[in-house]
Amino acid sequence: MNHQYSAVVLGVGPERGLGATLAKHFANKGLHVFIAGRSEDKLNIVADSIGNRGGVATAVVADATKEYDVSHLFEVIKLHGSPLLIAAYNVDSNIPAPILDTETEIFTQLWLQNCLGAFVFAKEAIANMKPNQQGTLFFTGATASLRAKPPFIAFASAKAALRALAQGLAREFSPQGIHVVHTIIDGVINGDRAEQQFSEYYKSKGEEGLLKLEAIAETYWSIHCQHPSAWTHELDLRPFKEPF
Amino acid sequence: MNHQYSAVVLGVGPERGLGATLAKHFANKGLHVFIAGRSEDKLNIVADSIGNRGGVATAVVADATKEYDVSHLFEVIKLHGSPLLIAAYNVDSNIPAPILDTETEIFTQLWLQNCLGAFVFAKEAIANMKPNQQGTLFFTGATASLRAKPPFIAFASAKAALRALAQGLAREFSPQGIHVVHTIIDGVINGDRAEQQFSEYYKSKGEEGLLKLEAIAETYWSIHCQHPSAWTHELDLRPFKEPF
Amino acid sequence: MNHQYSAVVLGVGPERGLGATLAKHFANKGLHVFIAGRSEDKLNIVADSIGNRGGVATAVVADATKEYDVSHLFEVIKLHGSPLLIAAYNVDSNIPAPILDTETEIFTQLWLQNCLGAFVFAKEAIANMKPNQQGTLFFTGATASLRAKPPFIAFASAKAALRALAQGLAREFSPQGIHVVHTIIDGVINGDRAEQQFSEYYKSKGEEGLLKLEAIAETYWSIHCQHPSAWTHELDLRPFKEPF
Amino acid sequence: MNHQYSAVVLGVGPERGLGATLAKHFANKGLHVFIAGRSEDKLNIVADSIGNRGGVATAVVADATKEYDVSHLFEVIKLHGSPLLIAAYNVDSNIPAPILDTETEIFTQLWLQNCLGAFVFAKEAIANMKPNQQGTLFFTGATASLRAKPPFIAFASAKAALRALAQGLAREFSPQGIHVVHTIIDGVINGDRAEQQFSEYYKSKGEEGLLKLEAIAETYWSIHCQHPSAWTHELDLRPFKEPF
Repeated sequence: MNHQYSAVVLGVGPERGLGATLAKHFANKGLHVFIAGRSEDKLNIVADSIGNRGGVATAVVADATKEYDVSHLFEVIKLHGSPLLIAAYNVDSNIPAPILDTETEIFTQLWLQNCLGAFVFAKEAIANMKPNQQGTLFFTGATASLRAKPPFIAFASAKAALRALAQGLAREFSPQGIHVVHTIIDGVINGDRAEQQFSEYYKSKGEEGLLKLEAIAETYWSIHCQHPSAWTHELDLRPFKEPF
Repeated sequence: MNHQYSAVVLGVGPERGLGATLAKHFANKGLHVFIAGRSEDKLNIVADSIGNRGGVATAVVADATKEYDVSHLFEVIKLHGSPLLIAAYNVDSNIPAPILDTETEIFTQLWLQNCLGAFVFAKEAIANMKPNQQGTLFFTGATASLRAKPPFIAFASAKAALRALAQGLAREFSPQGIHVVHTIIDGVINGDRAEQQFSEYYKSKGEEGLLKLEAIAETYWSIHCQHPSAWTHELDLRPFKEPF
Repeated sequence: MNHQYSAVVLGVGPERGLGATLAKHFANKGLHVFIAGRSEDKLNIVADSIGNRGGVATAVVADATKEYDVSHLFEVIKLHGSPLLIAAYNVDSNIPAPILDTETEIFTQLWLQNCLGAFVFAKEAIANMKPNQQGTLFFTGATASLRAKPPFIAFASAKAALRALAQGLAREFSPQGIHVVHTIIDGVINGDRAEQQFSEYYKSKGEEGLLKLEAIAETYWSIHCQHPSAWTHELDLRPFKEPF
Repeated sequence: MNHQYSAVVLGVGPERGLGATLAKHFANKGLHVFIAGRSEDKLNIVADSIGNRGGVATAVVADATKEYDVSHLFEVIKLHGSPLLIAAYNVDSNIPAPILDTETEIFTQLWLQNCLGAFVFAKEAIANMKPNQQGTLFFTGATASLRAKPPFIAFASAKAALRALAQGLAREFSPQGIHVVHTIIDGVINGDRAEQQFSEYYKSKGEEGLLKLEAIAETYWSIHCQHPSAWTHELDLRPFKEPF
């Protein structure tokens, strides 16, 4: 493999997380993977893991809410020179609270992370992909984008904003050959983040009640591989045991 | 009338606009109306118009995106002492553009105006209403909250965020006696703003193709008057000639 | 009052029911009301009640699923000669069951009652209203039209079919002056039907957890009175205590 | 290959059609395919084509709207003895007309074909799959299930009924290991049916504006292959050039 094509995942954290899993999956398929997130340590672990399995990964420290960081990420990608086939915005931030206890700062932060970062990322990714008239742009969304329930109102509002952004981008750029996909993750992911942030809830789900990381990544890849004559813009992903 | 009850409308601009019309309507019904917006001149025209017709209006200059301004508005209301029956967030900001030409600043501004301001406003209004276990909280929304189409992606994203916020608030506060309403304005309002900002489109609609200000206000009032056993959270409003 | 205008309600059963309440409400507003349902006894009780309060009602026995009956109902209306201002399709039939225990006959019956009857009724009502370019056509819908949950799948499928029908009719006939409205009743109605069919559930809701009949009728009337420049096609109605 | 597993597709018509393409795709993957439709001639062509390429197909003449036919189809499958892995309800019937010109018979027929047949099919398929706690049940849906537009109101109503049915079945049977999928075909399929029924529209789309049969089948297969920890219930499929 000479890695003529590349992918980028923004929102790579713990190795047992969706960002890292998507990156590994794309690396396994032969893409040079650019992985970005706030923690250099975590990125290095993921990059090493990919390298050890014969893949090629470049770690770029970036905070999705900082326009400069995102621009820099895409400059690094551009310098490398191989066309971007996949760009996945995988930042997902959720801080549950009753609305009267939600500070403006928190409400804003969730929007910056779940939506504004996606907007900046999307513009850069599309600018990179447009000349080649190909590429898949993924946004990892949530059921909350469809139904706002306390104590997740701030999260839901931010994810609804993301969903609308993704839908608009699909309408604007699909005809130009860019496949824009919004996934609705409905349930708890079997990863470090949920295990730590929603520990009790996580345990209550049991093994069969959690979304497996690799299973999600496989669907992302299938959707990326769709022929342009039958593209999917939106799909839900949920454990078979999950009530909905 | 001794104006024992009050209403507040944030987003009052030109006299021929929805904010002003709602304020006048509520004043006609006997409520002391607090009107807020960025332009003192415009507020004064509306306040005078209400006063001249025997109503009571208090103008408070406020930028919906500035938390301090919104807090101050509610301090003024509190000082007045009469319970708030209606709070209407009527800020509506739309700057159409292809997404690659949309600056981060603009994307953010639309969210600040259409959504964050609503969040801050809602918290203040709910804090005011909760002790009395009554009150109607209106959010003026748009069809774009349901369907994101270029060149209105930034607007749609912000309005989708607003819609989710309103829906979450309804779930959280309806059982506490606060009626939360999201209106979906589908079409062009027969007011100064659309006439100036979307002049050509406005004209193309013709008299019968525009939403009349007073007709919208009447529905807001009817919904406010609903018995709590049969509350409406969401409804669309569109000219009979409008394709949808 | 000389009852120059008329209304029709199909799906009038017990006096303490939505059909009867809508009919009484419209009669109170001065309309000659045609009430139709399967039980002559029940119709007569409602007609008498309207007559005793100074209203004018004509009872027509009709099964909504029989095309002949519905045609006959509209012939009676036509003979009377006064233009139809309101036509409300209020048939609502729900037989919960796990899907494997649902007979084809039951699945079909729910569709005949909740949807096909509405189609036949709508065609007749529109034919009556079109020459005058006015009139409001109501369809009493349910939350199940938006979310299908066991053991209400057959009901949900039929109500989703009804909702789509209503939406299509609104698109086709609003520009011709006919106001088509779909209401989403979300909760349990404080009437005989729910009390008898879902007795336990009904009781569990408590007084404050039920939709009051008259409150629903008031909203139907408000929506009927909307100016054509700002028509509502769809709105939900739910008790303030109802989780959603 | 010894064809230990089987699949069934109801709604197989012309060889250049979605039913036939799904059947061929499943046969290529090693499943014994039961193909059912109204035309014995068409079924035989498809069965021969599958056989010629080394696959195994059994043709069963069946009208989806006749309960007896559908029962018989599943008896044939049961007799064969190999567990059913996939059951696809692919009947799609659309007769556009203004609503006032739509006969009750036509409105009913579209529901029988698009929805009731699916109900009967689903019950049989689930009864077959339940003991093994595995299997994928596909319903080929349409965008009309989400938006009812004239002159497709009857079709939209029927497809909305189908969508609700599929959603309810997913909620009821996913936890029992049966994967229920509703696809939203958004656009015109590059097949004989659309070419003949919507000839002008079909041509206007151009090569790039049509859904390719094999591309759709590939996505059905990918979705069938999903791990149960991350199942998709609903996804759209549309040509990249299709406005939406």
